[in-house]
Amino acid sequence: MENYTVCQLQRDMRFEGFLLIRSADRRKDSKGNDYVDMNLADRTGEINCKIWNWDPNAETPESGKIIKVRGTVQEYNGRLQLRIEKWREARDEDPVDMNSLVPCAPRSPADMTAEIRETVAGFRNEKLKQLTAGMLEAAGSDLDWFPAAQRMHHAERSGLLHHTTDMLRMAKCMLQVYPWLNRDLLLAGVIIHDLGKMEELKSDRAGNVSDYTRDGQLLGHLVRGITNLNRTADRLGITGESVVLLEHMLLSHHGEAEYGSPKPPMFPEAEALHWLDMMDARMNTMKGAADKTPEGAFSEKIFSLDRGVYHPKYTEDAE
Amino acid sequence: MENYTVCQLQRDMRFEGFLLIRSADRRKDSKGNDYVDMNLADRTGEINCKIWNWDPNAETPESGKIIKVRGTVQEYNGRLQLRIEKWREARDEDPVDMNSLVPCAPRSPADMTAEIRETVAGFRNEKLKQLTAGMLEAAGSDLDWFPAAQRMHHAERSGLLHHTTDMLRMAKCMLQVYPWLNRDLLLAGVIIHDLGKMEELKSDRAGNVSDYTRDGQLLGHLVRGITNLNRTADRLGITGESVVLLEHMLLSHHGEAEYGSPKPPMFPEAEALHWLDMMDARMNTMKGAADKTPEGAFSEKIFSLDRGVYHPKYTEDAE
Amino acid sequence: MENYTVCQLQRDMRFEGFLLIRSADRRKDSKGNDYVDMNLADRTGEINCKIWNWDPNAETPESGKIIKVRGTVQEYNGRLQLRIEKWREARDEDPVDMNSLVPCAPRSPADMTAEIRETVAGFRNEKLKQLTAGMLEAAGSDLDWFPAAQRMHHAERSGLLHHTTDMLRMAKCMLQVYPWLNRDLLLAGVIIHDLGKMEELKSDRAGNVSDYTRDGQLLGHLVRGITNLNRTADRLGITGESVVLLEHMLLSHHGEAEYGSPKPPMFPEAEALHWLDMMDARMNTMKGAADKTPEGAFSEKIFSLDRGVYHPKYTEDAE
Amino acid sequence: MENYTVCQLQRDMRFEGFLLIRSADRRKDSKGNDYVDMNLADRTGEINCKIWNWDPNAETPESGKIIKVRGTVQEYNGRLQLRIEKWREARDEDPVDMNSLVPCAPRSPADMTAEIRETVAGFRNEKLKQLTAGMLEAAGSDLDWFPAAQRMHHAERSGLLHHTTDMLRMAKCMLQVYPWLNRDLLLAGVIIHDLGKMEELKSDRAGNVSDYTRDGQLLGHLVRGITNLNRTADRLGITGESVVLLEHMLLSHHGEAEYGSPKPPMFPEAEALHWLDMMDARMNTMKGAADKTPEGAFSEKIFSLDRGVYHPKYTEDAE
Amino acid sequence: MENYTVCQLQRDMRFEGFLLIRSADRRKDSKGNDYVDMNLADRTGEINCKIWNWDPNAETPESGKIIKVRGTVQEYNGRLQLRIEKWREARDEDPVDMNSLVPCAPRSPADMTAEIRETVAGFRNEKLKQLTAGMLEAAGSDLDWFPAAQRMHHAERSGLLHHTTDMLRMAKCMLQVYPWLNRDLLLAGVIIHDLGKMEELKSDRAGNVSDYTRDGQLLGHLVRGITNLNRTADRLGITGESVVLLEHMLLSHHGEAEYGSPKPPMFPEAEALHWLDMMDARMNTMKGAADKTPEGAFSEKIFSLDRGVYHPKYTEDAE
Amino acid sequence: MENYTVCQLQRDMRFEGFLLIRSADRRKDSKGNDYVDMNLADRTGEINCKIWNWDPNAETPESGKIIKVRGTVQEYNGRLQLRIEKWREARDEDPVDMNSLVPCAPRSPADMTAEIRETVAGFRNEKLKQLTAGMLEAAGSDLDWFPAAQRMHHAERSGLLHHTTDMLRMAKCMLQVYPWLNRDLLLAGVIIHDLGKMEELKSDRAGNVSDYTRDGQLLGHLVRGITNLNRTADRLGITGESVVLLEHMLLSHHGEAEYGSPKPPMFPEAEALHWLDMMDARMNTMKGAADKTPEGAFSEKIFSLDRGVYHPKYTEDAE
Repeated sequence: MENYTVCQLQRDMRFEGFLLIRSADRRKDSKGNDYVDMNLADRTGEINCKIWNWDPNAETPESGKIIKVRGTVQEYNGRLQLRIEKWREARDEDPVDMNSLVPCAPRSPADMTAEIRETVAGFRNEKLKQLTAGMLEAAGSDLDWFPAAQRMHHAERSGLLHHTTDMLRMAKCMLQVYPWLNRDLLLAGVIIHDLGKMEELKSDRAGNVSDYTRDGQLLGHLVRGITNLNRTADRLGITGESVVLLEHMLLSHHGEAEYGSPKPPMFPEAEALHWLDMMDARMNTMKGAADKTPEGAFSEKIFSLDRGVYHPKYTEDAE
Repeated sequence: MENYTVCQLQRDMRFEGFLLIRSADRRKDSKGNDYVDMNLADRTGEINCKIWNWDPNAETPESGKIIKVRGTVQEYNGRLQLRIEKWREARDEDPVDMNSLVPCAPRSPADMTAEIRETVAGFRNEKLKQLTAGMLEAAGSDLDWFPAAQRMHHAERSGLLHHTTDMLRMAKCMLQVYPWLNRDLLLAGVIIHDLGKMEELKSDRAGNVSDYTRDGQLLGHLVRGITNLNRTADRLGITGESVVLLEHMLLSHHGEAEYGSPKPPMFPEAEALHWLDMMDARMNTMKGAADKTPEGAFSEKIFSLDRGVYHPKYTEDAE
Repeated sequence: MENYTVCQLQRDMRFEGFLLIRSADRRKDSKGNDYVDMNLADRTGEINCKIWNWDPNAETPESGKIIKVRGTVQEYNGRLQLRIEKWREARDEDPVDMNSLVPCAPRSPADMTAEIRETVAGFRNEKLKQLTAGMLEAAGSDLDWFPAAQRMHHAERSGLLHHTTDMLRMAKCMLQVYPWLNRDLLLAGVIIHDLGKMEELKSDRAGNVSDYTRDGQLLGHLVRGITNLNRTADRLGITGESVVLLEHMLLSHHGEAEYGSPKPPMFPEAEALHWLDMMDARMNTMKGAADKTPEGAFSEKIFSLDRGVYHPKYTEDAE
Repeated sequence: MENYTVCQLQRDMRFEGFLLIRSADRRKDSKGNDYVDMNLADRTGEINCKIWNWDPNAETPESGKIIKVRGTVQEYNGRLQLRIEKWREARDEDPVDMNSLVPCAPRSPADMTAEIRETVAGFRNEKLKQLTAGMLEAAGSDLDWFPAAQRMHHAERSGLLHHTTDMLRMAKCMLQVYPWLNRDLLLAGVIIHDLGKMEELKSDRAGNVSDYTRDGQLLGHLVRGITNLNRTADRLGITGESVVLLEHMLLSHHGEAEYGSPKPPMFPEAEALHWLDMMDARMNTMKGAADKTPEGAFSEKIFSLDRGVYHPKYTEDAE
Repeated sequence: MENYTVCQLQRDMRFEGFLLIRSADRRKDSKGNDYVDMNLADRTGEINCKIWNWDPNAETPESGKIIKVRGTVQEYNGRLQLRIEKWREARDEDPVDMNSLVPCAPRSPADMTAEIRETVAGFRNEKLKQLTAGMLEAAGSDLDWFPAAQRMHHAERSGLLHHTTDMLRMAKCMLQVYPWLNRDLLLAGVIIHDLGKMEELKSDRAGNVSDYTRDGQLLGHLVRGITNLNRTADRLGITGESVVLLEHMLLSHHGEAEYGSPKPPMFPEAEALHWLDMMDARMNTMKGAADKTPEGAFSEKIFSLDRGVYHPKYTEDAE
Repeated sequence: MENYTVCQLQRDMRFEGFLLIRSADRRKDSKGNDYVDMNLADRTGEINCKIWNWDPNAETPESGKIIKVRGTVQEYNGRLQLRIEKWREARDEDPVDMNSLVPCAPRSPADMTAEIRETVAGFRNEKLKQLTAGMLEAAGSDLDWFPAAQRMHHAERSGLLHHTTDMLRMAKCMLQVYPWLNRDLLLAGVIIHDLGKMEELKSDRAGNVSDYTRDGQLLGHLVRGITNLNRTADRLGITGESVVLLEHMLLSHHGEAEYGSPKPPMFPEAEALHWLDMMDARMNTMKGAADKTPEGAFSEKIFSLDRGVYHPKYTEDAE
């Protein structure tokens, strides 16, 4: 049996391999028996399947898990469906990587985490070093796979690390061009600025965001980030200007009231953080839009940019 | 010696009585000796005085303190000045009340505090009762004299209590007209909504605000209120929806991003709190503007209203 | 034959009872004969029916009328339909109340009207008493059933009275908390502020608004209210400040140019009227949204609030 | 004695002639006697004078009146002052024209009024003819000298007629280019659109506006115009669409809520009226700004335009 | 065979006549043979047709061309379709006028062009005469049929000339009412102000705009107009204030940054041009909306006006 | 004679040295003789002087020139004044550097220009290389000293080069973090984006901007930059996408209509240019504000930021 991707599947093909559970709902069939309706996916697409006669006492499969399936592709009402013959949850020893099944950051979480930790290790300011390390510790290992958004930018597995480390690299450039900026403060701000998203968004381990949390809607990641920072500072017994500066950087990094920051950035490192965030988000969005648009053409209007994007040919000069 | 108010003073009058120190700066005279330049006030006005040959080792008098002074009114460069012969700080046993010297709330702090405590005592929801009581305890006795603002509305001694208790009375009305509102939640929100101002504003005990604090400028009273609430909840070991609902009420009570709330009120009690706050602030501002304007005339444009105010005659119907 | 509500009807059931005509259109069948296509409703839902072979000379039934019908429930193209066997218009002696058939205010029009009239009777200012009474007289008995809106808030039978009397009760509270407000002026403003809606909206007697009127679209209820007030004042021979103050209260009660008031409220009673109106509209909207949302969940975005609404559980504290 | 204008006066000159009273205040001198402090003006400038020992029982001279004066020019504190020897109010037979003393429209009120009346006489629509004539009658003879504004545009004697007749001429052009517009409706709208300003502004007969009236501030000329139109229609017994169309044209002629129109123009003649009004106001403002600016230079920022204005040379092409 | 318009066609009718190609796409049928799918139109409507077995080497018919067709009307899936028996491209000698097949300006291009050329010929300012003539020359003969927009206003064949000449006639009126305006400058501005649209829009010769061009999206007609003007001035060797004044008129004619003009009009002729443009666009839009709305009724909301439009009856006064 | 800076001067001191002419006006004294009133400056401050009996046929000294002066410091009306005994214009061989007399960029023009030229030399895209080099050539040697603004940011001698080269360094960082960006296009955009300012601002060679030019006010540096780019492309015979992309980058680099860009950035390099420009301008403004504010304090509100700036202590952590 060959190795097909989801988008290659056609009627009557046989399939065996690993797929990601995008969603799974338990329902009742016409006879009142339980069955499970699932959407399975890899990076190339999604296919529906049903597992009939589900044991009423068994748990429903969990969105974000990987399973191994074998079955046949059928067509029902004009749409393909996988008739499953056999399946099981993936095991640690299985030769499958979540990153091959979902959109994900171009670097591995391990690499990105190492870069961040190394940066923190280099801080000379002890308070900032402890606060930043404390915040990372509180975030825990979910940071490895957490996305940065539901749609907008870096909506991908490990997108939060992707966004953070790209900003970190740009921030280090800024420190060379504007050497009077406070190095540790700026880098600490970059590292913790979006950690509050981990309590704002409901994401499965595949980096797929299904919704906002209650706290996300009622408070948002800026304010939740600040209360987390306070709790960390209290725990570590740290007080003083450093804490307030970081609180302000969290609060102001969206730049304007209209975008969720009730205070604008009021010192240079806060201002720098805001522009680094904007720039990285926009570059990611622009690249995504241009990649989906043929050269020499305009995309549809992109919601978060409120404009269409042109994909230049760039090459005419070789003519 | 008669008892004059400051606005009654004229050249060559003798004065003896209690006055409030509005500001006090130590300077050097032409011979290099220290002197103190003070502005003294009661509710009717302000007068300048100098105390020459100040002991270089003595502390400068503190703004917001009451002193007893005796002296003569003189004129210098067309402005009145008090030539002080004798003075001392007021003592507890002196027959003087700060409230007679500065703009202050129409009710006594003791009355207003009692009304608030009685309200909290009546809460049925234990979590809300403890959280509210805990916040009041953390605020401490400075709440007795703290103003609600530097200018805008309730810029007076005990103005924060004045604003809070007027809102509390309106809130209790609302609970009769809209009985489906959650009583304890709404009243808790009213009581704690502006406590963060005590860390936002620099005020002396006369209720005179000289400036915003560092935290006030960088974070504001909404966010500082939320971190205080978190610390109180942590201390009391309270978690759950109640805490988040109060956090949201603090965050959203200004109603719109433009006015400092990154989230709009998202449940009925939060919405009610916002309108009670607006209504009370506006009624206070409107009354202040109308009081200063003759009947049948318009005031200058009031900054916080962005309009002039008309003081109606109301009485023509008796004509 | 049992007494079913519309939402309980199923195929093949028999129905006899009173229903409201939501809409009624005369059409031609394939043979060129007239028939009437009606939607009938009670508070729980709506069902379609046809009355075939309509007498070409008979008038079409009128939307907003109640009829008594007998018939059988059938299914056509997957939707239920009532096959009518017999019907007639409801008579005064029939045991049916319009209020059981449509969304309506929680109090009876008679109660609410009495509360208003009693309030006016208590006015000491003769001019305001006559003007208010004159405006109510001009409004006539349609006020009993007139709704306050097409959708937004108080879109229900007698919604205009509902909105007005809730505001009236809140206004009387305000007069206790802010006793310096002019009682008669504020209450008069509350009572007449939305009467212009009766010329702005096309409503049937069930409180169902089909559209805006020509005058409603070209002028709006604020301006039409002012011209009506002028006509009333002319008729009663009343002139002077009182008339202008009421004109201004009508004009400014939406608070801002953006919401239809070319002048902002410029004296305290006008300002108070604006906030009472906002508060009552918002409380009504918030309650409606929360009622339709499960506890612990968020509603869809509510158009007039530009946000989703959270329905708190409130009860966790009993845990 | 030569005939000097005010801007030609120098110390020790003798002056005899007619001047306009710009302002006149009665005060008390150091001995407690009444005197009058007046500013007198012609088109070229203003000069101050005092009339000592004013009879306490005599009325204070009225702003906007013309007087004949004789006196000597003196200097006091570096500013010129007229020491008056003799004066009296101007009489009908005096050879002086108000228009030579103040900024005024370039055409005579008689001419402009005639043009308007002739236009109305040509209306075919009887209702519009009567309504327009009725409004002009109600405006009365003050229309001859009434200005169109305090500052902005056409702030001059007879400025209201000037603005109205220039718009009338442009409107007649429009009727040629867009012949499908309703002639009588558009011209009626132009003629009455700003008559409400006569109750909005306090102006003396020289066209000098000292302030807004109570009704002007609380209601504005749009709404006051509408109530006047209603009263006129009631008086003449005219009802129907024509009245509502004119009401809407009055209400919407500022085009946007932000500029005072709660409804935008909703039919072609209302839209046309709005643009004619804008265009004429702007042309008048632009001309005023350019006239005061040297060729090839930029003016200061003009408040009502929110920009500076360039006065082109236009002539370089002859180089 | 009678002469039917497209909207008169019914099943089984025979049709012979001239139609416009609105769109034409080459496709493959189920056997892999080429066919052409076309939409054909006259002023009254559009009908689809297929031409089977298209020669793979022949070019696809071009949108915007006129063809002569003979065929039978058939019905397919409930929609009419023309089964073509014979067809050919229209020839110069054919008795058909494009203007009878598409929405077009009410005057002929020849008339309108003549009016413009005559106006330019009358300029006294040599520089402005040459620049304007140079710009018209560069625009070339496509100006005869170019529309002014894709939708909004003057979206019709020769719409650009229609818009320009109506503005020209209004401009000549303005010069009479405001004779101090510089005649040649204003008229030159009117004539060239929208020529840049010819590089902004992709239009076929029927005046049907399919899209914006790359330059249209990236730069817009204001900026492209300015670079064209510069090139024309360079070619003619013209420099000086005149060129800059025209550049500014092009740049500022949309009036506000929000509508695409980074500079507001800063001298009277630029201001006049802006209002003439607005007025003509709005009159055209208003007429279009009113024409499609029954008398006494309101249109749907018109996108470019952000409001519904009322079509007055105007005639009731004859009642 | 010691070497004093201007801010060290006191009454009766003697001064000899080089100063910059900030402004120079020729006037007439009371006897009708010409004299010159000058303000002379170094980096530390400004002092006024008069040169009496100026030869009526001699030219007035030019603002921006350096002179050598000798004289005595006097006091007149409480302000210091330099009584000049001898003066002459500075000569090439004089040991004085303009940069010691005015605020200027921290690097030498030669260094910065070299960095730019080297960058251009490295372009692989021939069209972009020629266009960029052509624009630099057209800018000429004034680029060495041209400032970037009148106030806002980089308002200093060589400020335009300073702004450009700092952006260039940040741009090269971006190309490492976002390697898919087109290198030559982004760098070309950075280099030419503000060259149009050289025709927008009137600056003397000291980098002191006195005003905007006519073209600057009527068109602005974005549009003038585009016409210059067109002229350069025409001269070099370059056409195609590259030119349009650069035109768009010039037009859109302010990001929003409100800030002067009628088109938002529509491809990644244009977006990147915008954020680089914002970031560099803001960093420069923030640094300037913080430098002028004591540690631990807030600045006044900065106009271009619309907020006050906090100067952190940063150092408390060493406590």
